[in-house]
Amino acid sequence: MRAVMKTHAGPGLELKVVDIPRIQPGHALVKVDAASICGTDVHIFKWDQWSAGRITPPIIIGHEFSGHVVEVAGDVTRVKAGDYVTSESHVICNECLMCRTDQKHVCAQVTILGVDINGCFAEYALVPADNLWLVDPVLSPETACLLEPIGNAVHTALSGDVTGESTAVFGCGPIGLFSVGVLKAAGARAIFAIDPNEKRLSIAARMGATHLINPRHEDPVETLRSLSGGYGVDVVLEMSGHPEAIRQCFRALRNGGRAAMLGIPPGPLEIDLGNDVVMKGIRIEGITGRRMFSTWYKTSALLGSGLLDVTPVITHRFKFEEFEQGFQAILSQEAAKVVLLP
Amino acid sequence: MRAVMKTHAGPGLELKVVDIPRIQPGHALVKVDAASICGTDVHIFKWDQWSAGRITPPIIIGHEFSGHVVEVAGDVTRVKAGDYVTSESHVICNECLMCRTDQKHVCAQVTILGVDINGCFAEYALVPADNLWLVDPVLSPETACLLEPIGNAVHTALSGDVTGESTAVFGCGPIGLFSVGVLKAAGARAIFAIDPNEKRLSIAARMGATHLINPRHEDPVETLRSLSGGYGVDVVLEMSGHPEAIRQCFRALRNGGRAAMLGIPPGPLEIDLGNDVVMKGIRIEGITGRRMFSTWYKTSALLGSGLLDVTPVITHRFKFEEFEQGFQAILSQEAAKVVLLP
Amino acid sequence: MRAVMKTHAGPGLELKVVDIPRIQPGHALVKVDAASICGTDVHIFKWDQWSAGRITPPIIIGHEFSGHVVEVAGDVTRVKAGDYVTSESHVICNECLMCRTDQKHVCAQVTILGVDINGCFAEYALVPADNLWLVDPVLSPETACLLEPIGNAVHTALSGDVTGESTAVFGCGPIGLFSVGVLKAAGARAIFAIDPNEKRLSIAARMGATHLINPRHEDPVETLRSLSGGYGVDVVLEMSGHPEAIRQCFRALRNGGRAAMLGIPPGPLEIDLGNDVVMKGIRIEGITGRRMFSTWYKTSALLGSGLLDVTPVITHRFKFEEFEQGFQAILSQEAAKVVLLP
Amino acid sequence: MRAVMKTHAGPGLELKVVDIPRIQPGHALVKVDAASICGTDVHIFKWDQWSAGRITPPIIIGHEFSGHVVEVAGDVTRVKAGDYVTSESHVICNECLMCRTDQKHVCAQVTILGVDINGCFAEYALVPADNLWLVDPVLSPETACLLEPIGNAVHTALSGDVTGESTAVFGCGPIGLFSVGVLKAAGARAIFAIDPNEKRLSIAARMGATHLINPRHEDPVETLRSLSGGYGVDVVLEMSGHPEAIRQCFRALRNGGRAAMLGIPPGPLEIDLGNDVVMKGIRIEGITGRRMFSTWYKTSALLGSGLLDVTPVITHRFKFEEFEQGFQAILSQEAAKVVLLP
Repeated sequence: MRAVMKTHAGPGLELKVVDIPRIQPGHALVKVDAASICGTDVHIFKWDQWSAGRITPPIIIGHEFSGHVVEVAGDVTRVKAGDYVTSESHVICNECLMCRTDQKHVCAQVTILGVDINGCFAEYALVPADNLWLVDPVLSPETACLLEPIGNAVHTALSGDVTGESTAVFGCGPIGLFSVGVLKAAGARAIFAIDPNEKRLSIAARMGATHLINPRHEDPVETLRSLSGGYGVDVVLEMSGHPEAIRQCFRALRNGGRAAMLGIPPGPLEIDLGNDVVMKGIRIEGITGRRMFSTWYKTSALLGSGLLDVTPVITHRFKFEEFEQGFQAILSQEAAKVVLLP
Repeated sequence: MRAVMKTHAGPGLELKVVDIPRIQPGHALVKVDAASICGTDVHIFKWDQWSAGRITPPIIIGHEFSGHVVEVAGDVTRVKAGDYVTSESHVICNECLMCRTDQKHVCAQVTILGVDINGCFAEYALVPADNLWLVDPVLSPETACLLEPIGNAVHTALSGDVTGESTAVFGCGPIGLFSVGVLKAAGARAIFAIDPNEKRLSIAARMGATHLINPRHEDPVETLRSLSGGYGVDVVLEMSGHPEAIRQCFRALRNGGRAAMLGIPPGPLEIDLGNDVVMKGIRIEGITGRRMFSTWYKTSALLGSGLLDVTPVITHRFKFEEFEQGFQAILSQEAAKVVLLP
Repeated sequence: MRAVMKTHAGPGLELKVVDIPRIQPGHALVKVDAASICGTDVHIFKWDQWSAGRITPPIIIGHEFSGHVVEVAGDVTRVKAGDYVTSESHVICNECLMCRTDQKHVCAQVTILGVDINGCFAEYALVPADNLWLVDPVLSPETACLLEPIGNAVHTALSGDVTGESTAVFGCGPIGLFSVGVLKAAGARAIFAIDPNEKRLSIAARMGATHLINPRHEDPVETLRSLSGGYGVDVVLEMSGHPEAIRQCFRALRNGGRAAMLGIPPGPLEIDLGNDVVMKGIRIEGITGRRMFSTWYKTSALLGSGLLDVTPVITHRFKFEEFEQGFQAILSQEAAKVVLLP
Repeated sequence: MRAVMKTHAGPGLELKVVDIPRIQPGHALVKVDAASICGTDVHIFKWDQWSAGRITPPIIIGHEFSGHVVEVAGDVTRVKAGDYVTSESHVICNECLMCRTDQKHVCAQVTILGVDINGCFAEYALVPADNLWLVDPVLSPETACLLEPIGNAVHTALSGDVTGESTAVFGCGPIGLFSVGVLKAAGARAIFAIDPNEKRLSIAARMGATHLINPRHEDPVETLRSLSGGYGVDVVLEMSGHPEAIRQCFRALRNGGRAAMLGIPPGPLEIDLGNDVVMKGIRIEGITGRRMFSTWYKTSALLGSGLLDVTPVITHRFKFEEFEQGFQAILSQEAAKVVLLP
């Protein structure tokens, strides 16, 4: 089968022909219908410091996909051949304190598809059956392959109450854009979208943002405060990982507000914790992954009912053979979400 | 009456004789039985940058006290002459978004007794009747004057579930020490107390700490992790405001844990937000003041039932005339809590 | 001024001309723009057992209204002449345990406008200033007079998470119908509306119900279960007070689900608490009134942003002189919500 | 091996000699050190209507036990031979909505040890490895066999905040008595124990109850209200299943209070839902089983740290051969908890 692989330590990826994986106990073999490129894949493509320390080539990368089950191991009952599925990308231990107390998304022993083990940028993917999620047939393969990153957005946006609240999304990459749609579906009364990229802002508007803020042209903190009775907004979602945006999101929040943070900054950063967090009495939620599987139920419900439509976020589609164009579209900031098709 | 005052912009305080305040609408006049020195008072004594920017002399300082009502304005029904009372120190607006939505402790317009208006280091204090809290007669004046800072500890320690949890208190100043007692009353299964001052650690032990950690002799993060199954503790209370302690408290927390932060660092500080907060999926609660008045009910219940005994924390008692010795006992790190008696 | 009054113990009401109320400390005088009839008013009109035990004539009834402030007492700062307002109907003590711990909606000493003291079915109403709520000028007087009962719906529907959940509303009187709209605004994935009255069901459809169930034609429990994967729905709102509906709402709930109950049954009723509540591990929230004032902020946000439009629920409008027709429209089950105009 | 069995449909049990169970995939074989009799076992012993409809003889009954693993199937990694264990009694499907969304305790497909499949009143028990829980070696086999019912108490008592709260436990059977101990460990300021049996009340006192109420001699509702400022208590735990106690527990609760209900009434019962639940704005939590496995961590933490000591509740110990005396001690209301030893 064809597979997009990191074949050696260093920048770039290659399309190779490799053997179809052989079934293993507890696993299912899935024929991939669609896959999508995550920021993590771009880090691996570029071979940044994090990738160099984590990835052991050769490995098939990719962890967002949809497809149909073609074979299951004898001990698997959760899915069967023919099922239309997508997948949680975190393979968890099921034994640590977190796994045993309803916090599987922060498992102490997690491995990740396409990062620690072979992933899904291939015609077939071998996946632990416990990770598979049955997809509502009303969803297209393109939407279905996005459930994992949409799940990040749902986990972040719905980590607290947003109905009738004023909200701000810092960073309109794909997950930020999905979040705008989730906030709209959940009835936020105001959704401020903040990003320096005008293309992304225009997609944010299509996803339901009520106000667009380009930090190159105006100070988000001042605008958010002046449009929120001088107090600041009730809820911020930090989706950029940009140090300045992180500091702004705390300052833009009202006393007693809530910040849900998914963006990963490039390293340690300076924060005025005393004035911006302690004295304001705010709550910060660090968010990673997706709750297994309550986030998945919620995500499926929003998509299946039509309350959330993510098609405006899919800006580019490429064949596996054209994968490099997909990565370039992201690197050039032309693209929001890029889908790869076998 | 005698009053401890900041008479002019600059270091130091003076004991002066001034007029007894005249009653005002909505207020009560309270004869002070006992008062106690807060870290804020020490800042004002030293006339640090914060004080110089906030305090307008002449002003009677002090905001922790107990006493008996001697007179109330005609429109006051909440208290009457003879009542045994203590006081919330935050005078709130009752009109802002936060005041109207059960978050009075982060009122946008708060003024503070002994900081923005005359306080309680005097024979009599004039206080808005809405701020007064009836004290259980079983409590001594010395304990009763401490309800405000004990309330900080209750607000912080009980901002989430601690029963049966492993907990760590970073910083064993008076509020940290009270917190240890609250955690013990609430049934934490382990209470790690961390402070470089051995005297404070020994008081922490008397308050119920199960483990004492002096960061001069061992690395708190390593110790906490190794004594918590390698995962880290469930809950940390940050009571020190020390930048290194703040970084340690995040690292000592297990994935999915909770940090309640009351200590105010001296300025912005560097935090590894990506690795220590976002990727770990932890919750941070910024804590200031006391919930009005649910924290006060809780605090009174713990003290009145005998579940919490704070007498080990009171290390020094002085007369108003000796106030300077009280401040010196704190500055020399000899004292935990210092009580002043008229 | 003209006022709709209960003038003596017994059925019926009378339109009388009485003096305009004189201002009192802490109060505001409001010129009424619109008022609406609540089920409570109908009980008083009919003079049922509850009314006979509670009401002391003569009294001006009515507690839902909007209007403009014409005069305020000297000690009032919250509102001023000219303000566009509506009102919380519960006059609370501000002193009991519940009032002091953020549960004012269950004050132990509540009195109610138009029930215990003169109300608003008159040209002018005298109201404690603390009860008044500034109305967003984009709202019509007809909508503004409904904030109190819409607040009941918001309090009930948003007493827990509903975004992406399957929900059912038992009873489509006005508050049930408002609830359907709130659930829609908050992104419930399914909203089952249950009522034996086809007119009400058709309004429920306009408010956003995704399924209509007439219990005369089908068994709600069976339908709800079969359309919820056999498990039952995630959330029920009990708005009918009908004993059979109450029993059905528990049976229609999935294990671990949540029931928010606002409807008042006519008396004690038989419930299978063991099988339908304990063994299923469900949560029941008894709901009364509105949280002061977080529910009001939420309600205003939903209406002001256009996320909630309640106009389909207003089926009849009458002049004060025609008040009797308004009550008859409700008694005959022709009407949903009836608005009275001075 | 010897085993206490229901050999045929009808009252009574028999001690039989049967084969030691053979290991199965996913299972572990445990040599039983201690077991204890639950109310459910008594129902089966008496062969009441519920038992007759549910139990299919022949079956080894019993579901509370501790022991040491002697053998595990080849696919089991969670436990190994020699491990000191106890067991969750609910065998869950891991596939239903509830299992997949952190509500395993209300699994739609649960089977129960000693009820639906062979249990533990035997020298050896065959148990799914996922159900086993490693016991802290500081706990005696007698305490360790009680983790399952203590878990019921922990689940009920800690389903909300109790630290500093006034609490009441209706029904002082074994789980009620455990609950008293949990409330004490968690720092409830008042713990009212209500039971008509004076022996049980005296054990409640030893477990930490601050007030004992015998409903034969005084009205619990009146006493609880008069000792709670006239408002009623903050939290009630319903552990009796007695219809009159259930009604009393709602009436004894203050407005805005919380009822956690574990006791199973014998059938439907009449409740004044309007006055006692809706109008008071109370929350009811139906409680069954134990959260898997957060309740188990909490329970182990409380026992292992010495915060909870349940030995006063163990009133009788019998050998397997004497099992009938154990059942009689419960039926005669002489016993609280009865432990059986192989």
